[in-house]
Amino acid sequence: MSKEKPSIPKGTRDFGPATVVKRNYIFGVIKRTFEKFGYLPLETPAMEQLSVLTGKYGDEGDQLIFKILNSGDFLAKTKPEDIEEGYKHLTRKISEKALRYDLTVPFARYVVMNRNEISFPFKRYQIQPVWRADRPQKGRYREFYQCDADVVGTNSLLCEAEIVQMINEVLTTLGLSDFTIKINHRGVLAGIAEAIGEKGREGDICVAIDKLDKIGQEGVRKELLERGISEGAVQKLEPLYTLEGNNEQILDQLQALLGDTDEGQRGLKDLREVWQYLKSLDSQALSAQNLSEQSRLLLDVTLARGLSYYTGCIFEVKVNNVSMGSISGGGRYDNLTGMFGLPGVSGVGFSFGVDRIYDVLEELGLFPSSSQVGTKALIVQFDKASERYGLPVLQKLRDAGIASELYPEAAKLKKQMGYADQKNIPYVILIGSEEMATGKLKLRNMEQGEQQDLTVEEIISTLK
Amino acid sequence: MSKEKPSIPKGTRDFGPATVVKRNYIFGVIKRTFEKFGYLPLETPAMEQLSVLTGKYGDEGDQLIFKILNSGDFLAKTKPEDIEEGYKHLTRKISEKALRYDLTVPFARYVVMNRNEISFPFKRYQIQPVWRADRPQKGRYREFYQCDADVVGTNSLLCEAEIVQMINEVLTTLGLSDFTIKINHRGVLAGIAEAIGEKGREGDICVAIDKLDKIGQEGVRKELLERGISEGAVQKLEPLYTLEGNNEQILDQLQALLGDTDEGQRGLKDLREVWQYLKSLDSQALSAQNLSEQSRLLLDVTLARGLSYYTGCIFEVKVNNVSMGSISGGGRYDNLTGMFGLPGVSGVGFSFGVDRIYDVLEELGLFPSSSQVGTKALIVQFDKASERYGLPVLQKLRDAGIASELYPEAAKLKKQMGYADQKNIPYVILIGSEEMATGKLKLRNMEQGEQQDLTVEEIISTLK
Repeated sequence: MSKEKPSIPKGTRDFGPATVVKRNYIFGVIKRTFEKFGYLPLETPAMEQLSVLTGKYGDEGDQLIFKILNSGDFLAKTKPEDIEEGYKHLTRKISEKALRYDLTVPFARYVVMNRNEISFPFKRYQIQPVWRADRPQKGRYREFYQCDADVVGTNSLLCEAEIVQMINEVLTTLGLSDFTIKINHRGVLAGIAEAIGEKGREGDICVAIDKLDKIGQEGVRKELLERGISEGAVQKLEPLYTLEGNNEQILDQLQALLGDTDEGQRGLKDLREVWQYLKSLDSQALSAQNLSEQSRLLLDVTLARGLSYYTGCIFEVKVNNVSMGSISGGGRYDNLTGMFGLPGVSGVGFSFGVDRIYDVLEELGLFPSSSQVGTKALIVQFDKASERYGLPVLQKLRDAGIASELYPEAAKLKKQMGYADQKNIPYVILIGSEEMATGKLKLRNMEQGEQQDLTVEEIISTLK
Repeated sequence: MSKEKPSIPKGTRDFGPATVVKRNYIFGVIKRTFEKFGYLPLETPAMEQLSVLTGKYGDEGDQLIFKILNSGDFLAKTKPEDIEEGYKHLTRKISEKALRYDLTVPFARYVVMNRNEISFPFKRYQIQPVWRADRPQKGRYREFYQCDADVVGTNSLLCEAEIVQMINEVLTTLGLSDFTIKINHRGVLAGIAEAIGEKGREGDICVAIDKLDKIGQEGVRKELLERGISEGAVQKLEPLYTLEGNNEQILDQLQALLGDTDEGQRGLKDLREVWQYLKSLDSQALSAQNLSEQSRLLLDVTLARGLSYYTGCIFEVKVNNVSMGSISGGGRYDNLTGMFGLPGVSGVGFSFGVDRIYDVLEELGLFPSSSQVGTKALIVQFDKASERYGLPVLQKLRDAGIASELYPEAAKLKKQMGYADQKNIPYVILIGSEEMATGKLKLRNMEQGEQQDLTVEEIISTLK
């Protein structure tokens, strides 16, 4: 066996206990919310057929897919020409499988493969890692979890309204209050393009105005002109960046601007229907408590979202006053499964960025202490006698459902206390000769540093 | 985009909602038990450096590791000679990363990399998938979950006793009662080898007697002789296959047989200490209730377990009267981290085979119905009016913490009921014109087929 100094691949991470416990707290809130809304879990394999993934993410995406080398003698079926033709050609000869790049394509694949068994509308959530051979940098990893929820097989805009509710519920349950759920509609964007005299150019317009936050109005203007949008159209577009009023007032202004375009009409009708659903549901997202008048839900016509497969409502969520990109986003697509030959399955989905949510909660100090506790009590031992005395005590604590440990060796007190400290164990139980004689054990509260002499039963009722 | 018929790689599986929910039930029981005993979760990346994995599983294991093709032009740094030298040589040139093969080596790697931050003894559990390029067959997959718990940095046999307790607790919580936790000790096996005049040959003896269940006493005899164990030694060995009496009586018989061998002494002393701990803990595993006299814990000197790195106690668990291999196993090792240059870290660990446990629970009908429910209530709608009436009802149910859905379209009643049926939703709420007029909604219990007219508040208190 080699004695190399071990390391992990760049862009990947180990998650130690303290981090896993906090991440699981976030996953738990998300799962419980998804399930309350009728979404059920799906899990797909880490490996997919390379042919299933190829061609779904554009050329650049294809390059970022991690391919798995065929096992055994992968060269056996190759010819010298295959190698001469270069690595792209050779890849297809020596690799048949790859690591999933997102959860959307595996979901589409699952729906197509199981379409005869699935009862539509099919609401599923999926929380699993994905892998991308991106260049690692701060906040960008080669292995990271995605948290998706999608419903396919219905056009009902109740689904969109429920997505707004789920986002609102997850984030408020996590203790966040100052966030904005931006919503827009691809039809509105198409209608805008038509209304400014650039019908069919909404793709270029979206790419440019998507960068408004980053490069500002001047930057967007420059990019639009470079992309061949006319000076006049750009001028007509710019007032839309700063529409004023509440959401319904903005909808009315847009109605006046886009009222004649089919796509614009479709978009506005959908958005009004989402609003109507939220009102009927009496949704808290419409009027964020504690934020006086302001609504958490904001119609933002400059929201474009890059992914080309969206066709209806689109969402994006920002935590305010924190320097962090969007922590959630999604939208409706009309043809998710078309890539596998099953057209006409409309759906809407969204996902949470768990790494970003983690960083935000950490920055704002929002992880509750209850999300961080593992073992509740450590029994310290001094010698064989105190160990023997401690064993049935340990059993009683566990029988009462209290996560507890007996330090497995009669190590120095300092070492045992240090163990409790580092493991963030809130209570230590000390059993010395006096304690054994009286039956009253010392219970030390590690945070406050206080000690009490208590019977085992008293300790149990204190810890429960 | 291609329109191929999609499939998944052989040996991998999709887990639909019904299966995920049941698997999560098993994981949940395991996690809660691990945590009650002070074990905390660790997660490592799916990809490891190939150099970290190579050489740890033997030549055959190395072949079964899934390697990941370097991204970008993986041929750029290869020379024509590299290709001529064959695929094994070429693999090292075009692949630097691989999928983890088990959770033990990544754990050892983690301990070595973080040894200065970890407070020992370090108790971690890890529940993650592993990948092996084995030939797929019934019950053997290329992607499957392992569920490991290990404690490193202590020699205390309390850890072994607690492992017996954890196995017992997990399985009984899952509703299993008729199972046997077999225990043995590598020292006992070495002592036996010495006592029958084949000192140092315990490796060969273990490999052979490990197959006793499969090939019987005659088969083992043949294999032992083939492996060069003498006729006389085999004869001395055979009475050990059928030692009679309870565990303590067996220990006494072994004491007489192995009393003179150092290794045998060590093994028997350790085993007696484990027993002593379990007695002090008043462990239920020692005397299985409902099984009259029989203990669930069984000292079995024919238990060998293949893995060569075990050095102390070894465990294996069988569910009785079910044709299924062992569902859990483990043991103590003295030099886990030695492979990465950190010697002297003793530890003991074990794991659960979740796929097998799943199949056993399915076969015995032990999944509780509560482990299978997602959505609790579906509101059926007939038209826009009943939808509008249903929306605040839906909200009230969810506000009360009841997982519920409103069918998102006014589809035919049969379709909506079929949806509830297939999704295993236990209650359906029907809102027709009469219900809207009276405020009493129809609550249908899907299993019993009974209907009641109830107010929303009455429905909530029924469902909670």
